[in-house]
Amino acid sequence: MQKLFEYNWLVRGEWFDWCGQVPEEELTRERTGGFGSILKTLVHVVDIEHAWIRGLMGEPESHYPFEPYATLEAARKLSDEAAAEIRPFVLDWTDELDDKRMDIFTYGDIMRHLIAHEIHHIGQLSIWSRELGLKPVSANLILRGPR
Amino acid sequence: MQKLFEYNWLVRGEWFDWCGQVPEEELTRERTGGFGSILKTLVHVVDIEHAWIRGLMGEPESHYPFEPYATLEAARKLSDEAAAEIRPFVLDWTDELDDKRMDIFTYGDIMRHLIAHEIHHIGQLSIWSRELGLKPVSANLILRGPR
Repeated sequence: MQKLFEYNWLVRGEWFDWCGQVPEEELTRERTGGFGSILKTLVHVVDIEHAWIRGLMGEPESHYPFEPYATLEAARKLSDEAAAEIRPFVLDWTDELDDKRMDIFTYGDIMRHLIAHEIHHIGQLSIWSRELGLKPVSANLILRGPR
Repeated sequence: MQKLFEYNWLVRGEWFDWCGQVPEEELTRERTGGFGSILKTLVHVVDIEHAWIRGLMGEPESHYPFEPYATLEAARKLSDEAAAEIRPFVLDWTDELDDKRMDIFTYGDIMRHLIAHEIHHIGQLSIWSRELGLKPVSANLILRGPR
């Protein structure tokens, strides 16, 4: 389980790097599908991961509004801070937690949902990247090539 | 591990259902990004999963050419047959296999690579779906809603 979260954090960081070459107006431009814009989509995956895992940690649900994070610098800082808050829970994951329940869901299904959720949205970014004429970040988990 | 493969097979099947409403020329039309067209992208995820898992099963690597599967009916049949061939290996997976090696890779990393690979390409289909004015298949693992 941890390895797929670590994969997502690695890939997400590379997408924030990728954003550095893109004019800010393209990062916030509304697009067809996804979560509306490149930055909104990235903030959305940060927010959803953070909100659900806080729930698994027994903390009250809370969501980030988008507006304060509508710049690359602010979105990246949010991502770093949100991931730092939930990373200990993810890294301490053991398979015994898989069947534990929160409401109608198992902890394991929530974790797998979050893994799939982020990879799915990153796939959307890859199309927008090609539409911008840019090479997307590799989605490979193995064979990621030179960094 | 199994649950994320099962999620992918479920979602893939729903994408083949989704394709039923789309004219064949849109399914094979070349698009920007992904694996070139909707059907090529679906056949590609089938092929990559099948090729790698056959490797893990000790079978020689082999790949499907696209042309014989360039219709919805043929692509779906290929998907069903390829998944049937590798499903027993996936369903028999145990964590002891995680560190077993094939060449420079661990079995676990190859399995996680395949999970991420398919979800990533499915995310691409969701953008093309919106560009066609169609609601994409849900990517949710939990809360998939009424079927």
